[in-house]
Amino acid sequence: MLSLKSMTKENKYNFKTEELYPGFLVREVNSRLKYYVSKYKESPAILRRAIDYSIKNEGKRFRPILCLLTARSLGKDYRMVLPTACAIEFIHTYSLIHDDLPSIDNDDFRRGKPSCHRKFGEDIAILAGDALFAEAFSIVLKYQRADDNIKIRVLKEISEASGAEGMAAGQIVDVYFAGKKISKNKLEYMHQNKTGKLITASVRCAAILCKAGENYLKKFTEYSNNLGLAFQITDDILDVKSNKNLAGKTTRKDKAQGKNTFPCIWGIEKSKKIAEEKINKAISIVKSMNIDYEWLVKIAQFLLTRKV
Amino acid sequence: MLSLKSMTKENKYNFKTEELYPGFLVREVNSRLKYYVSKYKESPAILRRAIDYSIKNEGKRFRPILCLLTARSLGKDYRMVLPTACAIEFIHTYSLIHDDLPSIDNDDFRRGKPSCHRKFGEDIAILAGDALFAEAFSIVLKYQRADDNIKIRVLKEISEASGAEGMAAGQIVDVYFAGKKISKNKLEYMHQNKTGKLITASVRCAAILCKAGENYLKKFTEYSNNLGLAFQITDDILDVKSNKNLAGKTTRKDKAQGKNTFPCIWGIEKSKKIAEEKINKAISIVKSMNIDYEWLVKIAQFLLTRKV
Repeated sequence: MLSLKSMTKENKYNFKTEELYPGFLVREVNSRLKYYVSKYKESPAILRRAIDYSIKNEGKRFRPILCLLTARSLGKDYRMVLPTACAIEFIHTYSLIHDDLPSIDNDDFRRGKPSCHRKFGEDIAILAGDALFAEAFSIVLKYQRADDNIKIRVLKEISEASGAEGMAAGQIVDVYFAGKKISKNKLEYMHQNKTGKLITASVRCAAILCKAGENYLKKFTEYSNNLGLAFQITDDILDVKSNKNLAGKTTRKDKAQGKNTFPCIWGIEKSKKIAEEKINKAISIVKSMNIDYEWLVKIAQFLLTRKV
Repeated sequence: MLSLKSMTKENKYNFKTEELYPGFLVREVNSRLKYYVSKYKESPAILRRAIDYSIKNEGKRFRPILCLLTARSLGKDYRMVLPTACAIEFIHTYSLIHDDLPSIDNDDFRRGKPSCHRKFGEDIAILAGDALFAEAFSIVLKYQRADDNIKIRVLKEISEASGAEGMAAGQIVDVYFAGKKISKNKLEYMHQNKTGKLITASVRCAAILCKAGENYLKKFTEYSNNLGLAFQITDDILDVKSNKNLAGKTTRKDKAQGKNTFPCIWGIEKSKKIAEEKINKAISIVKSMNIDYEWLVKIAQFLLTRKV
């Protein structure tokens, strides 16, 4: 187990999500997540603790905030999409728990704290991840107000983004090809699936809930595809450049594990350039839309300067 | 890894699902499962192989068959509920893959073959399980024909049966209290959640898709709750009494792992008696209903004599 000393040492991760986006949105997401987590009265105490620990271990909340900002860009009340935004954060959290497991990324730290399996054991971590995934669907089904046909479209977005042709596919390529060189196309496939599709779902679900037309949906998809890829490229760059205290997780692990990343295939400078291109593309797309794009531009720009 | 010798030795599991229920239903379920599995053209080959291996490693198909038999008992065409029946088998398969993992039940064999993690590695097994879970929702969303409001009710049944107050909760109690004595109430809670709720969902989803009234739904719930509990009790008894070749998995592991089971708390004879009571109760419930109950009685009786 972790010693108190190492826990203290690692616990310096002190990143303020509220500095990145409108603070009230972050507070709203956190408070709603807390509310959902408080609901599992019939669950065993250890499962509630593991869920609570993982959900409240506050990250950037990039996906739910992106979901809320998309609704706002369409002139809608962000609260309209809050349950779906939180459901997506549940899925993201479950994916991190499984990702950190010894047989996958073997990461002892997440957001400056011991990862779920270090805190609760591998068995509890696997099952807490499984529970969070199921509960993501339950949140949309129980709490998202929308016409049934809209709700079904949202659920489709979410299940497809996470499944055998989505997040799980990307993760599999990531672990299976560690130590083996992959083509640039496969690298992009991996990133689009591992990270991109859930980010795209965050934007698309909001647009669907706000009843945006097909034309808007197409542009939002293009925006978020570019954003998602840029997100993962900057993540890879951070893994090389950042240090553990700042990132809140073990860094420089990709290279040690022989992981295929943008920097290792393209080099750091070229990777930065690609990320910039994707971000500029994303920005130009939302700027071409008849929406209130200010925050969708800002959240894209944040990726260029992100330190976590 | 497994030696060829041990694989041959374990491969005697030669259980014929078709002898238990109407053979054409089993063939229909298997062929539809095969069809869904063939759909993941965008997935990495290794993921497709792991999904294929796990889904085609034919088990009793108890849950999907129960789903079809429920529809038939209401005089409906069983094909009406086939996608949902298969989705539930996807969830069951994912739960077995995770259950067999070294940090959970640490089982090297499943249905007479190396378990998924022994065949493909732990990382692939975890992620293949995750993918199957997501795909279960996608199957209902894409292939189940039903009014949207009905489809949403079905999805609710499935997500709640699997989540933090369902299957994942039962599994957590199972692993967390291994080696510690639990109360009879907690044992029943564990079984109801770990196994019972998905079995109940198999029956309830069929009834919902067939638009059975609330009164019917209530009785079907009672029937399947009894059936689910009896299923797990007979599973526990088999773990003590059966041998590896017949069961297709490592037996007598519960005791070795200090697992809380009906036999270890109540003794074998009393456990058998409880299972019989539950089965008789289940049978008397469906017999009191104005339905074609013949096969719902038979599938309950099968539990009394099951060897696998």
